[in-house]
Amino acid sequence: MDREQLAQEWAARIARLQQAMAPEGLDALLVTQHVDIYYTSGSMQAGYVLIPAHGEPTYYVRRSVDRAGREAYIRVAPLGSLRRLGETLAADYPELFGAGGAAVRVGAELDVLPAQQYLKLAELLRTGCGAELVDGSALLRTARMRKSAYEVGRIEAAAAAAAEALTHALPLLREGVTELEWMAELEYELRRRGHVGVMRMRAYNQEIMTGMVGAGAAAAEPSAFDGPAGGLGLGPAAPQSVSRRPIRRGEPILIDVGCCIDGYVIDQTRTAVIGELPGHLAAAYASSERLLRAAESRLLPGTPCSELYVHALAEAEEAGLAGHFMGWNRDQARFLGHGIGLEVDEWPVLARGFDLSLEPGMVLAVEPKFTFPGEGVVGIENTYLITPQGPRALTRSPERLIVL
Amino acid sequence: MDREQLAQEWAARIARLQQAMAPEGLDALLVTQHVDIYYTSGSMQAGYVLIPAHGEPTYYVRRSVDRAGREAYIRVAPLGSLRRLGETLAADYPELFGAGGAAVRVGAELDVLPAQQYLKLAELLRTGCGAELVDGSALLRTARMRKSAYEVGRIEAAAAAAAEALTHALPLLREGVTELEWMAELEYELRRRGHVGVMRMRAYNQEIMTGMVGAGAAAAEPSAFDGPAGGLGLGPAAPQSVSRRPIRRGEPILIDVGCCIDGYVIDQTRTAVIGELPGHLAAAYASSERLLRAAESRLLPGTPCSELYVHALAEAEEAGLAGHFMGWNRDQARFLGHGIGLEVDEWPVLARGFDLSLEPGMVLAVEPKFTFPGEGVVGIENTYLITPQGPRALTRSPERLIVL
Repeated sequence: MDREQLAQEWAARIARLQQAMAPEGLDALLVTQHVDIYYTSGSMQAGYVLIPAHGEPTYYVRRSVDRAGREAYIRVAPLGSLRRLGETLAADYPELFGAGGAAVRVGAELDVLPAQQYLKLAELLRTGCGAELVDGSALLRTARMRKSAYEVGRIEAAAAAAAEALTHALPLLREGVTELEWMAELEYELRRRGHVGVMRMRAYNQEIMTGMVGAGAAAAEPSAFDGPAGGLGLGPAAPQSVSRRPIRRGEPILIDVGCCIDGYVIDQTRTAVIGELPGHLAAAYASSERLLRAAESRLLPGTPCSELYVHALAEAEEAGLAGHFMGWNRDQARFLGHGIGLEVDEWPVLARGFDLSLEPGMVLAVEPKFTFPGEGVVGIENTYLITPQGPRALTRSPERLIVL
Repeated sequence: MDREQLAQEWAARIARLQQAMAPEGLDALLVTQHVDIYYTSGSMQAGYVLIPAHGEPTYYVRRSVDRAGREAYIRVAPLGSLRRLGETLAADYPELFGAGGAAVRVGAELDVLPAQQYLKLAELLRTGCGAELVDGSALLRTARMRKSAYEVGRIEAAAAAAAEALTHALPLLREGVTELEWMAELEYELRRRGHVGVMRMRAYNQEIMTGMVGAGAAAAEPSAFDGPAGGLGLGPAAPQSVSRRPIRRGEPILIDVGCCIDGYVIDQTRTAVIGELPGHLAAAYASSERLLRAAESRLLPGTPCSELYVHALAEAEEAGLAGHFMGWNRDQARFLGHGIGLEVDEWPVLARGFDLSLEPGMVLAVEPKFTFPGEGVVGIENTYLITPQGPRALTRSPERLIVL
């Protein structure tokens, strides 16, 4: 896409956010998080993006103003004195802040904005332009659920890199190699293909660089990671993903590794084995493929997100695997999949309580997995685009148990 | 160290935090951030650590309770219903919360805790145990400034890995290789040595995986990164660190790359060149070494942190390089160095306004650098432990302009 087409892409995002403000009782958004700033401006420099419900947005940049000016698709202005932010907004948007009457409601991402900065910004808006700072994170997260063709293209680029890297690294996956050693090979291939180095997450205290490779008992370790298999990790201060445990013959090797290209992430999981899986684990792996096929049949516009989880849970139960589904014991994760885009943990979530229905343009990672303590984790994960005709897989690695 | 010695290490941390509470007007700390949770418990599982000013702390764990129980050096309890957190604390700490009179003041890390969670926790404490949630981040950051012998050992392990990785990757740094390609080689060496994958940062919107490699004009690009040289990056959504620009003969190659081992990070910078640097850049590099030597002479207990920056700025001015010091034009960073430990951006900061004096046990990265727009960045960075006798360098790579 040329710069003019990209400018239209970003103009459409702003327009969609503006349309959503009135129903949410918001008069403006003050975007503070680097990922949301990129989503709304096209640049990821330090500062704030003010989007009024009507009129032109402004990207107030602390640093680098030069770089934001070159990159952004919206108007850029130097932030100036943060202490005078309220006064600056009042001067730049007299119609928004000068109307009198009920307090102007400005939404920010209270799901990620640190409390100190929230309290400070709330005070600056109150005293400087009489506005109230409220939670606008749901509006932003909702708008980001539906991806444009451009965004789907970026996710596909990440999917291609992830698939190529796996193909190149698989010949090095041999008995006795440690999870860490093989992950270093896989990450090397990902990095050379432009992986940014991190798969950004929105949730507090959660972090992923490329995902996890876990074999046998190490994969089945419970973890703080909010997913079905966090992995053993390198120690108490790095308590997820790979460990220094050598990979052994006959144990399942869970390869839940994605990457981030141009800001967009892909998530995929494949299961491998050196030799042959024990019968009950091979059967559980086959069940994960069946659950994925069943989920695909429901990945249609109009299906409530929660239904995907409820059905998968019932199918796991039928297979006699409910106790192993998405973790074990009190550390079972209670979802089947999650939205993905600029962040790994986007909306919607395929979980109980998420009653929203699927819509064309949503992109979801679906990841049925089964955990066997002491033995390992088996499963599969694809990322799909929801289209009017059903799901289109964006992940490219062949779908099969990888036998080495 | 065996487990008993480690238990003493963690007991000493708790005791120091408890002693600091009364002077800060705090009755307890509620630790919420994963790094602070590790610092206070020895485990990094999801949950909260409650540390009363007097008595035994409790690590309330959401997941994984099993893993926290195996790892932590303090008492572990299941978190149970978050909605009843206040009631749980009141029941477990009747002397703290049942005394009546003035509201009990509980400190949390409001510098990192997201506003949504801050508002929710404040409400839960108010209604459940009549306590007030206030900012305790300064207390935690202050306590973490002074490192124990154990912590210094962890930082030294990271320093050794960083130095070894650089030695192994340097032979691959050749004319025409892109920054990204060579970074992939360097990161491969770091990862194999146990680099966790991320160098954790505390500041909102800031991220480092291993640092930056920047050659020529790409290194001198202004960036959102809160340091002297962020780098060009891979695009607007990854706007720092390496780019796809080939490295050329005769231009400065800034290698500002560290790693994280067992949770602790090291930061170091070396400058390399293929062939020979132009005279003015060679002279600026020599100035950066002189500034580092001058800073070393002041890295003594009792020196105010701000003095280090003020002196370095004066020395840069004497050398006719004030305009190039720590960045260029309106994107100059206004510090000379920073504390480092579990996070890259710890206290103290060597900057104006930071009037605290150096103390034995502090660990600081000192990084005089000079930026030449269109030409590159030159400089050097070591990490030092402050001892009663002066600074001890923890970084191990030879200090010289690396000529290839």
